[in-house]
Amino acid sequence: MRKIFSIILLAGLPATCMAQDSLIMRKISDEIMLHGKCYDDLRVLCKEVGHRLSGSPQAAKAVEWGLEAMQEAGADRAWLQPVNVPHWIRGKEQLKIEFEGSSDKVEIPILSLGNSQGTDGKLLAAGIVMANNFEELEKMPDEAVKDKVVFFNYRFRQDLLHTFHGYVDAGPYRWRGPSVASAKGASAVIIRSVSTGIDDFPHTGSMHYADDVAKIPAVAIGNSSADMLEQKCKTGNVTAYLTSECRMLKDSVRSYNVIGEIEGSVYPNKVVLVGGHLDSWDAGDGAHDDGAGCVQSIEVIRAFKKLGIKPRYTVRAVLFMNEENGLRGGYAYDDSATARGEEHIFAIESDAGGFSPRGFSLAMEDDKARQIRYYRELFKPYGLYDFEQKGGGADISPLHRHGVPAAGLRPDPQRYFDLHHTANDVFEQVNHRELKLGAVAMTQLIYLISNYGLK
Amino acid sequence: MRKIFSIILLAGLPATCMAQDSLIMRKISDEIMLHGKCYDDLRVLCKEVGHRLSGSPQAAKAVEWGLEAMQEAGADRAWLQPVNVPHWIRGKEQLKIEFEGSSDKVEIPILSLGNSQGTDGKLLAAGIVMANNFEELEKMPDEAVKDKVVFFNYRFRQDLLHTFHGYVDAGPYRWRGPSVASAKGASAVIIRSVSTGIDDFPHTGSMHYADDVAKIPAVAIGNSSADMLEQKCKTGNVTAYLTSECRMLKDSVRSYNVIGEIEGSVYPNKVVLVGGHLDSWDAGDGAHDDGAGCVQSIEVIRAFKKLGIKPRYTVRAVLFMNEENGLRGGYAYDDSATARGEEHIFAIESDAGGFSPRGFSLAMEDDKARQIRYYRELFKPYGLYDFEQKGGGADISPLHRHGVPAAGLRPDPQRYFDLHHTANDVFEQVNHRELKLGAVAMTQLIYLISNYGLK
Repeated sequence: MRKIFSIILLAGLPATCMAQDSLIMRKISDEIMLHGKCYDDLRVLCKEVGHRLSGSPQAAKAVEWGLEAMQEAGADRAWLQPVNVPHWIRGKEQLKIEFEGSSDKVEIPILSLGNSQGTDGKLLAAGIVMANNFEELEKMPDEAVKDKVVFFNYRFRQDLLHTFHGYVDAGPYRWRGPSVASAKGASAVIIRSVSTGIDDFPHTGSMHYADDVAKIPAVAIGNSSADMLEQKCKTGNVTAYLTSECRMLKDSVRSYNVIGEIEGSVYPNKVVLVGGHLDSWDAGDGAHDDGAGCVQSIEVIRAFKKLGIKPRYTVRAVLFMNEENGLRGGYAYDDSATARGEEHIFAIESDAGGFSPRGFSLAMEDDKARQIRYYRELFKPYGLYDFEQKGGGADISPLHRHGVPAAGLRPDPQRYFDLHHTANDVFEQVNHRELKLGAVAMTQLIYLISNYGLK
Repeated sequence: MRKIFSIILLAGLPATCMAQDSLIMRKISDEIMLHGKCYDDLRVLCKEVGHRLSGSPQAAKAVEWGLEAMQEAGADRAWLQPVNVPHWIRGKEQLKIEFEGSSDKVEIPILSLGNSQGTDGKLLAAGIVMANNFEELEKMPDEAVKDKVVFFNYRFRQDLLHTFHGYVDAGPYRWRGPSVASAKGASAVIIRSVSTGIDDFPHTGSMHYADDVAKIPAVAIGNSSADMLEQKCKTGNVTAYLTSECRMLKDSVRSYNVIGEIEGSVYPNKVVLVGGHLDSWDAGDGAHDDGAGCVQSIEVIRAFKKLGIKPRYTVRAVLFMNEENGLRGGYAYDDSATARGEEHIFAIESDAGGFSPRGFSLAMEDDKARQIRYYRELFKPYGLYDFEQKGGGADISPLHRHGVPAAGLRPDPQRYFDLHHTANDVFEQVNHRELKLGAVAMTQLIYLISNYGLK
């Protein structure tokens, strides 16, 4: 009994408050489901701004859009926070494949991996060596790999029910595959996309060159092309003809995080943060990744103001710049918070797609996690039940490393890695109700924490 | 303690069995996620057979397809069960609208409501009277409605988080709206579609004429057109010009339920049923409604056979005919079961779309429901958590009325009523992983019940 009582105290929720909170949570839901602006905001961001890689003109346009959207949502204050971001450009790129016994070359859709070095626009022609995983490559003699194009044919594990587990499993082939192949003397790398898709969209995404290897070109191909290439590699010699212009420019670009806030009535200097990232890859619309998280975060501000909810702690929405290929926005925000001595009591990020929300992942001390799990019953009517996963979000990870309790919105993960980092991550793939339900859940949690704190 | 023990006995699940079951459930999941055929089956049903309204040539083709698919899945026996179905045909249909002060007529996309009578191909021209709900129409004097076209402008409640609750709320405008308007002397009815969509797809679906009213034409329009028509009706006189050929033909058509089964090793005469409905509306592909339920039911048979699972009770998959506009398949199946003295210990239907499964609805005595809820922990790794909803499915409702415990697969409901009964319910709207996860959940539950029974 004492334990139950202490949990209730901990959660700051006597029974009368629970009933009151449940009513306010319903008002939040009604407001967003009936009058929410996040879906319309997303249309504008996707279709009028478009994709917005860090350093690009569209990223600059997105910053302007974000500031205006934050002001229109009714933020007490909205401002831009300077961030220097890397400037990677794609340019033209083409991969053709020639099979033994055929004089025709077949063009395969590709996306160079983010931050990779291309062929300087020159033709790179070399035989392909297929490796199904790192171990297979390691076992090959160096001379069999030297000057060849390594094809990492590692498949996304469709048997893993949480696709983010599959992403963690296959992701290393994108992130460090190029360095592993380069260390063996390869001249370039082709990877089977880190993708659950049963189509031919290539998926880009960040890669990283180890300090001691040559920066060889690295491209992703879609699953259908990878299936075809796998068959061809099993039955004969295959030659790759790759031309690409991508490169990291020397100079960084001045960009911005976009911030809006509602001042806390009791603790104006203590911040509850909600955010997503404003930059995207340069394919598709960056709709699920992470236009969704941005417009949901703006919706939190809008719903608070529209409903006249006055938070006791300051509620701050942040659209981070450069999550995809540098995380400079997350670091700049954290540096600024440290420099200003700002206290963040909680930070949550939505960066897993605009799908039906199923719960929140938590990265914090047990006592605090227990408080949030205690709210679980309040979220059940909204279809959220899973409060057991770990983790927050990339942009808030620098804050978290400095001790800020972090969380992530966890939507249904089944469709995300069909679309992630592809030309198919477009506005039309986002469902209006699913997107809004995510905004509802975030607003409700921010309401609870900005009212009760996190003890 | 005794209670807990009795629940465990009730569920037939000592702890060792739980561990064993958990392993078999994982094998089922791996098999379907890696090698499942339901998505490929759905492609064939949608793209080679197409939509398949009862009585249509495509419905006949779907029956052939279903029998073959059931045999290929490895059913011990597969057969066709005769059903006489109504034969409603759509023919051509067109609605144009003329606004006061404009000489141009605007054409609006429509779908006549299923089972409704058209204009016999003749032009029906009449002024439109808008009513936001039944109460508004009732309050109007009869002479204001007589010979007019009633526009029921009732909106789907987007604030209801379970869209099936919204469907129950708005559905009566489709089902009995035409009779209500006819009783007031209207010459035709236009309804705002029963739709969560923010687009202009009209949604068809069954309607029913009361015995004592004239059978007036009834059509649905999409939400965008309804928004426009609402504005026009508020500001001036609007005239409808409707031509339609739809009608119910006098003669019923011989069709079939498609059935496949695996004989139970201990109780061959006791049946555990899993099913969906094979017919669809004559728009789109009938992909979510209910191609999904059909291919998932076939997948249950396939996975059992592939994994060598020998059920103690007979497992039977049924593709019911004529759920959409008659339910004759459900009645015929029930009649046959009664005539043959077959005992059904459990029946489950998948007819809520091929989306990520979230749980099972239950329609049965408390003791039996408790047994299934006891399995909840086993389903958590697969994302199913909601075992609290009531209900089974339409096709198995005749069985349920005779005492058979019934259940329904409950997928995420957010996108269903954007697509339901429209030209947009196509194969491309179904995600391969979400569809397969539904098949996994059904196979797992059928495994548990065909092994332990339902006590």
